[in-house]
Amino acid sequence: MTRPLVLTLGEPAGIGPELTLKAWLGREASGLPPFAVAAGREQLEKVARKLGLAVPFSKVEPEDAQAAFATSLPVLAGSPEIDVEPGKPSPATASVTIGSIDRAVELVRQGRASAVVTNPIAKSVLYQAGFRHPGHTEYLAALSARFWGGAEPRAVMMLWSETLAVVPVTIHVPLRSVPELLTTELIVDTARITDRDMRERFGLAKPRLALSGLNPHAGEGGALGTEDDAVVRPAVEILQAEGVDAVGPLPADTMFHARARANYDVALCMYHDQALIPIKALAFDEGVNVTLGLPFIRTSPDHGTAFDIAGQGVARPDSLIAALKLAGRLTETTES
Amino acid sequence: MTRPLVLTLGEPAGIGPELTLKAWLGREASGLPPFAVAAGREQLEKVARKLGLAVPFSKVEPEDAQAAFATSLPVLAGSPEIDVEPGKPSPATASVTIGSIDRAVELVRQGRASAVVTNPIAKSVLYQAGFRHPGHTEYLAALSARFWGGAEPRAVMMLWSETLAVVPVTIHVPLRSVPELLTTELIVDTARITDRDMRERFGLAKPRLALSGLNPHAGEGGALGTEDDAVVRPAVEILQAEGVDAVGPLPADTMFHARARANYDVALCMYHDQALIPIKALAFDEGVNVTLGLPFIRTSPDHGTAFDIAGQGVARPDSLIAALKLAGRLTETTES
Repeated sequence: MTRPLVLTLGEPAGIGPELTLKAWLGREASGLPPFAVAAGREQLEKVARKLGLAVPFSKVEPEDAQAAFATSLPVLAGSPEIDVEPGKPSPATASVTIGSIDRAVELVRQGRASAVVTNPIAKSVLYQAGFRHPGHTEYLAALSARFWGGAEPRAVMMLWSETLAVVPVTIHVPLRSVPELLTTELIVDTARITDRDMRERFGLAKPRLALSGLNPHAGEGGALGTEDDAVVRPAVEILQAEGVDAVGPLPADTMFHARARANYDVALCMYHDQALIPIKALAFDEGVNVTLGLPFIRTSPDHGTAFDIAGQGVARPDSLIAALKLAGRLTETTES
Repeated sequence: MTRPLVLTLGEPAGIGPELTLKAWLGREASGLPPFAVAAGREQLEKVARKLGLAVPFSKVEPEDAQAAFATSLPVLAGSPEIDVEPGKPSPATASVTIGSIDRAVELVRQGRASAVVTNPIAKSVLYQAGFRHPGHTEYLAALSARFWGGAEPRAVMMLWSETLAVVPVTIHVPLRSVPELLTTELIVDTARITDRDMRERFGLAKPRLALSGLNPHAGEGGALGTEDDAVVRPAVEILQAEGVDAVGPLPADTMFHARARANYDVALCMYHDQALIPIKALAFDEGVNVTLGLPFIRTSPDHGTAFDIAGQGVARPDSLIAALKLAGRLTETTES
């Protein structure tokens, strides 16, 4: 028996339910691993009816999801029902959204599911209901401590595609704050987590990490900024001394064309846009958000709730499909 | 009679001479417009012999370049000879490198040439010989004032390819300095020059400009930085009020995939890597550096002197070829 992936509900008024249905409909064409949705059956049925998608459902325990998956979309028994209109989010649904995440992680901890794939949430909706975590990823780190014990792990965001994988060292901060927040220690810590998970989860014997410079031309010897020599280069040297295959600081603008990409497995970038611009330019629909550093495998589509198009049937499931496939692949690698 | 483009010598110990020869050899396959090189015949012949490239030369006045171009590489009569080894630059050649630029601009001013295409220079070599300008582009702005009179124009750098065109509003400065240097006035001024030259040189009736945000997610309503609302948005509003087709601030990471690119002609980006990462990721070999805001047309390959590979025969002329072709196209549009 293969344990299923668990797909969370996400924001029920966003495009998550629609993408979930479309992903299941494309399960054979896409070669998807079996997954079960931690969501109520009625709310998904309602979206299917509205969009005219012929999706049969089965209400199952995780152990029965694999057998059911070929002919029906398995939803986990015991998931609470909610009723919400697409595009009209309500804080009243927040506890169910969060409960779906909790259950997915707990099932993996219990060995009843293999990995967590999360549909996008809307932080603003959850905040109105008292959610106190900076975001989805940080909440998963907190759940790691709750279910596994010990200190909260540092979660590292990777955007992955077949074309390019990037890890931003600083993420959702103003550009102005990046030079202050960027420390040698932060870079080294991020790279160590990346290196370990690329080995253990992605199965690379010796992952090749390329670190970008912070400044144009990686500072051009100090003429265009001091941080590349003072902060990034020492991090590369520490990593190399530990046996990590790391190079840099490299000029960021010449790191992302095909010949350059052939030289590394993951690009560690110093800030959000430096990492996300190239992967979204090169692989907009196929990008997957992978959280490194957690005690379990978690992937997610690389987009938001898209309230503006929710319920219209136009949302593309490419990224969710890529997230489900990657979660399946990482599970196989990790367990083999 | 079509007036020729003038191609400058550039740094003679770099890859410029080699690329010049290769571009001429590919003139028919690439459909190149006629060009003449403002460089000595003997030094180019020496490079051709060394690389085994069968290039016949003719020493001509600009008026004879077009007739000569089909069967020989026209070099301008009166160009001083120098002798330098590939990869071994010498400050002794600086005056000839600079004189080639001066002559190219002067010939355009005299109406004897149509546009200037520059081979890459090595600023450090020129600085050793007393050159005092921050770079190639700034020197061309100074020459504009010398030959056309009036105040020195503000030169704006655009990186252009068939796939994407970008203009960085701030360029060669430390990332840390960008938030201070970025002003509404600077953005508006840059956009006005871009808008005008896209109309007058590129022949677009109403150029569509997309302005990026400075911060991740264009500041996300202030949560990720204040400059997008305080600095960039007012610039967009001023431009729109003037009738410029400008939108923004847009989240930079979602601006550069194919569907997004279809919505604009030029992306104005707030800093170097934000602009250069996407164009070099998408069109590494075909990018052309175009200087907007000058009283003449100037294009340049989008790479440096590459001393490390000079003289080896491995340098790719794609970007120089693209620069020559674009200069020819802009000349036709401007003169028609």
